Amino acid sequence: VTHFGALAERINSTRLWDRHEQLATFGATSRGGVNRQALSNEEFAARRQLLTWAEPLGLTPTHDPAGNLFFRYPGRNSDLAPVLCGSHIDSQPTGGKYDGVSGVLAALEAAEVMRETGLVPERPIEIVAWMNEEGSRFAPGMMGSEAFARVRPLDAIRAVRDANGVMAGDELDRLFTVFPEIPVRPLGFAAAAFVELHIEQGPVLDAARIPIGVVSGIQGKKTYKISVFGEEAHAGTTPRSARRDALRAAAAMIDTLHREIVDADDVVRFTVGRVNVEPNAPSVVPAKVSFSVDLRHPEGEMLDGFALQLERVCTELAAPCTADVERLVDAPPLTFASELRDLIRETADRLALQAIDLPSAAGHDARNLNTVCPTAMIFVPCKDGISHNEAESVLATDLVAGTKVLAEVTAQLASR
Amino acid sequence: VTHFGALAERINSTRLWDRHEQLATFGATSRGGVNRQALSNEEFAARRQLLTWAEPLGLTPTHDPAGNLFFRYPGRNSDLAPVLCGSHIDSQPTGGKYDGVSGVLAALEAAEVMRETGLVPERPIEIVAWMNEEGSRFAPGMMGSEAFARVRPLDAIRAVRDANGVMAGDELDRLFTVFPEIPVRPLGFAAAAFVELHIEQGPVLDAARIPIGVVSGIQGKKTYKISVFGEEAHAGTTPRSARRDALRAAAAMIDTLHREIVDADDVVRFTVGRVNVEPNAPSVVPAKVSFSVDLRHPEGEMLDGFALQLERVCTELAAPCTADVERLVDAPPLTFASELRDLIRETADRLALQAIDLPSAAGHDARNLNTVCPTAMIFVPCKDGISHNEAESVLATDLVAGTKVLAEVTAQLASR
Repeated sequence: VTHFGALAERINSTRLWDRHEQLATFGATSRGGVNRQALSNEEFAARRQLLTWAEPLGLTPTHDPAGNLFFRYPGRNSDLAPVLCGSHIDSQPTGGKYDGVSGVLAALEAAEVMRETGLVPERPIEIVAWMNEEGSRFAPGMMGSEAFARVRPLDAIRAVRDANGVMAGDELDRLFTVFPEIPVRPLGFAAAAFVELHIEQGPVLDAARIPIGVVSGIQGKKTYKISVFGEEAHAGTTPRSARRDALRAAAAMIDTLHREIVDADDVVRFTVGRVNVEPNAPSVVPAKVSFSVDLRHPEGEMLDGFALQLERVCTELAAPCTADVERLVDAPPLTFASELRDLIRETADRLALQAIDLPSAAGHDARNLNTVCPTAMIFVPCKDGISHNEAESVLATDLVAGTKVLAEVTAQLASR
Repeated sequence: VTHFGALAERINSTRLWDRHEQLATFGATSRGGVNRQALSNEEFAARRQLLTWAEPLGLTPTHDPAGNLFFRYPGRNSDLAPVLCGSHIDSQPTGGKYDGVSGVLAALEAAEVMRETGLVPERPIEIVAWMNEEGSRFAPGMMGSEAFARVRPLDAIRAVRDANGVMAGDELDRLFTVFPEIPVRPLGFAAAAFVELHIEQGPVLDAARIPIGVVSGIQGKKTYKISVFGEEAHAGTTPRSARRDALRAAAAMIDTLHREIVDADDVVRFTVGRVNVEPNAPSVVPAKVSFSVDLRHPEGEMLDGFALQLERVCTELAAPCTADVERLVDAPPLTFASELRDLIRETADRLALQAIDLPSAAGHDARNLNTVCPTAMIFVPCKDGISHNEAESVLATDLVAGTKVLAEVTAQLASR
């Protein structure tokens, strides 16, 4: 039996760091980042590298039909539901070296030290790299975990096409052809728990210089496409009273929403990031404007209230145009299992690593896993909260701290 | 001596209408419009057609170095400054059959009936087709009249390139090669007056069913590019207080300007027609927004006042972003010579044609001619004010009415 702390003290900082650097060579960009989109040749090469590292550990690789890659660390009782542990290795087109990757490499490092200490847990452990978390090539993302958790049918995922018209399903078939040695298991299986280590992608931990974030949950998110329909007219001749200016109405909506969707604690996140104007010519009154809304809040009731406000403002300010409010995403806020959060917090305490609770502002595969098993996340700091960016930067000591917690937590969960 | 009304009663509606149809075959589009851009082969072919019509009338063709095409109807005293009369035959890429063309064909029809009645005016009359009014191929437009009036140096005009990199100067040289029989006269000459018939390109005359518009002048126009500079940020993580949202500031500006740049009489024209957002992604706080402003008013003082208001609003509402207000066009309002406007109004009255005064909302070659000689414009109605559009539509009776006034006005001017 491995005593508490034996795994943590063996975490190899150099190995962990070097593997981040090595994985970053697959899809490396000239500005120090990574372009390794889902099911691309670069991502296939990175998967091959994971296999190379897993093999001497005796980990058994499997694919599922959604292209999720698993490595099994055996337990005493192979009939027990395994503990799942991992993240993703696909990246944004101008992504960094740590987003997703850290969660997979930390889980692999945990397996390394488990093997070194001869740990044989009660339950098996499955390290996982979820397929297409980022959604930059095939949108929307989190495809692999959605399929695994039956949140979205695999057929719908396979039918998605990238910008070149390539179907995700065809790329999945290519994956299985490129890796014929990896058996394809049935989609989905009972898991005892899922733990995901991830960089925070926000500024809180880095600003406070605290290495461990115990993620309380993921804030709720609603996204919309607002379309405003007016009428094209000549800028020089058409009087104001005869215009139905779609941009005039849209600007009033955006301005009003920015003044109304606010709170004293600055918790709500309201963003209009995209605006498209037609015909978008300087001397033509716009006939059509569409704009995106990204609305987030950790509390469901607050989020719903702001959403009602959004629909009211867009309806009230449309005239003399008409407006259509289309909701694209409606993900309610989520709270991770308290027993797992307690276990992470206690484990950090026992390892003398400072930890705080904080919510995740971004979505993660853990959102989907939370629907099928007790789920938790461990955050580590990233510099200035910068992520989805080639400048993404992380301290090795923080990676090590997070990996220590992950290894000890996983071992405890697998021993139950 | 031809008595008043003798020209008007001879205007040949069928000939005038058929020539519009025939000229529309050069660059005809499948949707009933015209794509006959400046100095293109299609425009050269249309010039050739004008020559064919002018020849039996004994009109003498000349080019000037700016590619303006003149046809001289001789007067008793060839030393006197001629009366200029015409418009342009180039079109927008999806233009109509009447914009510009009507002014040239009306002048040609006037020459037809002058010849038929044996009119020999005191002064010569020069019918003109100005080079590149539209500016869609070589931007900006009104090149021929700008060169003629010395508003812009010919060298600068010759240096302009189209989207394929072809220089206007090379196309001018090609014009002179294609038409070696047309002598090239020196650029610019003293003119006694310029009269341009044109479709209104606005709804006033058509709505009131009045055939003749006595154009009071051209409203002033200022255009701007406003650039707002903020900072890219993550829509899910960055609190409102830490954002510098370029779109939030731009929306406030556009909304405020739409509420402030108004007048009781609905005369000012304020348009934001183009908005560009960077990076224009739904989950990224916009880092940069630029938008166009098109501001017009017939009175210079009012226009300047609104312009000051525009700059103040953009400056005041920029924080926490910064804003840059760049003025692109500054064309002051212009009033045409009152003696010519009186003459047009009286002529219409004597011909029992209903006429009203109205300003031109759009720019015309007459703007440039007004800087070198007494200038006036006659508007005729176009359906629903639609122009710069393949659906441009005009009634033959309105064209005839306008041509009657043009012929009688030109004859009177040439007799002075």
